[in-house]
Amino acid sequence: MPLSSPSIEKLIRKEGAERVSKTAARKLSAALEEEAIKISKIAVEFAHREGRKTVKPEDIKQAHISLR
Amino acid sequence: MPLSSPSIEKLIRKEGAERVSKTAARKLSAALEEEAIKISKIAVEFAHREGRKTVKPEDIKQAHISLR
Repeated sequence: MPLSSPSIEKLIRKEGAERVSKTAARKLSAALEEEAIKISKIAVEFAHREGRKTVKPEDIKQAHISLR
Repeated sequence: MPLSSPSIEKLIRKEGAERVSKTAARKLSAALEEEAIKISKIAVEFAHREGRKTVKPEDIKQAHISLR
Protein backbone atom coordinates (compact mmCIF):
# COMPACT_ATOMS: atom_id res chain seq x y z
CA MET A 1 0.00 0.00 0.00
CA PRO A 2 1.52 3.35 -1.03
CA LEU A 3 0.02 5.21 1.94
CA SER A 4 1.71 3.46 4.86
CA SER A 5 -0.30 2.77 8.00
CA PRO A 6 2.40 4.14 10.37
CA SER A 7 2.41 7.56 8.69
CA ILE A 8 -1.39 7.59 8.62
CA GLU A 9 -1.40 6.68 12.33
CA LYS A 10 0.88 9.66 13.03
CA LEU A 11 -1.49 11.93 11.14
CA ILE A 12 -4.50 10.74 13.17
CA ARG A 13 -2.52 11.29 16.40
CA LYS A 14 -1.66 14.79 15.25
CA GLU A 15 -5.39 15.49 15.07
CA GLY A 16 -5.76 14.65 18.76
CA ALA A 17 -5.98 10.87 19.10
CA GLU A 18 -4.20 9.41 22.11
CA ARG A 19 -4.32 5.94 20.67
CA VAL A 20 -5.14 4.63 17.22
CA SER A 21 -6.08 1.02 16.55
CA LYS A 22 -4.05 -0.60 13.78
CA THR A 23 -7.24 -1.48 11.95
CA ALA A 24 -8.36 2.17 12.09
CA ALA A 25 -5.11 3.35 10.50
CA ARG A 26 -5.38 0.62 7.86
CA LYS A 27 -8.98 1.61 7.18
CA LEU A 28 -8.09 5.27 6.59
CA SER A 29 -5.12 4.27 4.46
CA ALA A 30 -7.37 2.07 2.30
CA ALA A 31 -9.99 4.83 1.97
CA LEU A 32 -7.33 7.29 0.82
CA GLU A 33 -5.88 4.83 -1.65
CA GLU A 34 -9.34 4.25 -3.10
CA GLU A 35 -9.81 8.00 -3.45
CA ALA A 36 -6.36 8.33 -5.06
CA ILE A 37 -7.18 5.63 -7.61
CA LYS A 38 -10.51 7.27 -8.51
CA ILE A 39 -8.88 10.68 -8.99
CA SER A 40 -5.96 9.19 -10.97
CA LYS A 41 -8.18 7.24 -13.38
CA ILE A 42 -10.12 10.40 -14.26
CA ALA A 43 -6.96 12.55 -14.46
CA VAL A 44 -5.33 10.07 -16.89
CA GLU A 45 -8.51 10.12 -18.98
CA PHE A 46 -8.43 13.95 -19.11
CA ALA A 47 -4.78 13.96 -20.24
CA HIS A 48 -5.37 11.30 -22.92
CA ARG A 49 -8.42 13.13 -24.29
CA GLU A 50 -6.22 16.14 -24.85
CA GLY A 51 -3.60 14.00 -26.57
CA ARG A 52 -1.10 14.38 -23.73
CA LYS A 53 1.09 11.64 -22.32
CA THR A 54 1.82 13.64 -19.19
CA VAL A 55 -0.65 14.00 -16.33
CA LYS A 56 -0.53 17.62 -15.22
CA PRO A 57 -1.73 19.36 -12.05
CA GLU A 58 -4.86 20.70 -13.79
CA ASP A 59 -5.87 17.09 -14.62
CA ILE A 60 -5.68 16.21 -10.93
CA LYS A 61 -7.55 19.37 -9.97
CA GLN A 62 -10.37 18.79 -12.47
CA ALA A 63 -10.61 15.09 -11.57
CA HIS A 64 -10.88 15.96 -7.89
CA ILE A 65 -13.60 18.54 -8.56
CA SER A 66 -15.53 16.13 -10.79
CA LEU A 67 -15.72 13.64 -7.91
CA ARG A 68 -17.30 16.05 -5.40
CA MET B 1 4.15 15.08 3.94
CA PRO B 2 3.06 11.58 5.05
CA LEU B 3 1.84 10.62 1.56
CA SER B 4 5.05 10.78 -0.42
CA SER B 5 4.99 12.15 -3.95
CA PRO B 6 7.03 9.26 -5.43
CA SER B 7 4.54 6.65 -4.20
CA ILE B 8 1.64 8.78 -5.41
CA GLU B 9 3.35 9.13 -8.78
CA LYS B 10 3.62 5.35 -9.00
CA LEU B 11 -0.08 5.05 -8.23
CA ILE B 12 -1.00 7.51 -11.02
CA ARG B 13 1.24 5.59 -13.47
CA LYS B 14 -0.47 2.38 -12.46
CA GLU B 15 -3.75 3.94 -13.61
CA GLY B 16 -2.33 4.43 -17.09
CA ALA B 17 -0.23 7.62 -17.09
CA GLU B 18 2.91 7.46 -19.19
CA ARG B 19 4.34 10.53 -17.49
CA VAL B 20 3.33 12.42 -14.38
CA SER B 21 4.44 15.97 -13.67
CA LYS B 22 5.99 16.44 -10.23
CA THR B 23 3.49 19.15 -9.45
CA ALA B 24 0.61 16.82 -10.36
CA ALA B 25 1.86 14.16 -7.94
CA ARG B 26 2.34 16.81 -5.25
CA LYS B 27 -1.17 18.12 -5.89
CA LEU B 28 -2.76 14.71 -5.44
CA SER B 29 -0.64 14.06 -2.37
CA ALA B 30 -1.81 17.37 -0.84
CA ALA B 31 -5.45 16.64 -1.68
CA LEU B 32 -5.24 13.24 0.00
CA GLU B 33 -3.56 14.69 3.05
CA GLU B 34 -6.32 17.29 3.35
CA GLU B 35 -8.93 14.52 3.12
CA ALA B 36 -7.04 12.47 5.74
CA ILE B 37 -6.96 15.43 8.13
CA LYS B 38 -10.70 16.08 7.73
CA ILE B 39 -11.58 12.42 8.35
CA SER B 40 -9.17 12.19 11.31
CA LYS B 41 -10.53 15.29 13.06
CA ILE B 42 -14.08 13.92 12.93
CA ALA B 43 -13.00 10.39 13.92
CA VAL B 44 -11.15 11.75 16.98
CA GLU B 45 -14.26 13.74 17.92
CA PHE B 46 -16.42 10.59 17.66
CA ALA B 47 -14.04 8.61 19.91
CA HIS B 48 -13.86 11.41 22.49
CA ARG B 49 -17.64 11.79 22.60
CA GLU B 50 -17.90 8.14 23.54
CA GLY B 51 -15.26 8.58 26.23
CA ARG B 52 -12.66 6.54 24.35
CA LYS B 53 -8.96 7.39 24.03
CA THR B 54 -8.54 5.01 21.10
CA VAL B 55 -9.67 5.83 17.59
CA LYS B 56 -11.28 2.68 16.21
CA PRO B 57 -12.14 1.59 12.65
CA GLU B 58 -15.82 2.47 13.13
CA ASP B 59 -14.81 6.08 13.94
CA ILE B 60 -12.94 6.30 10.63
CA LYS B 61 -15.84 4.67 8.80
CA GLN B 62 -18.45 7.03 10.27
CA ALA B 63 -16.24 10.08 9.74
CA HIS B 64 -15.73 9.13 6.10
CA ILE B 65 -19.48 8.65 5.57
CA SER B 66 -20.27 11.97 7.28
CA LEU B 67 -18.06 13.78 4.75
CA ARG B 68 -19.79 12.44 1.64
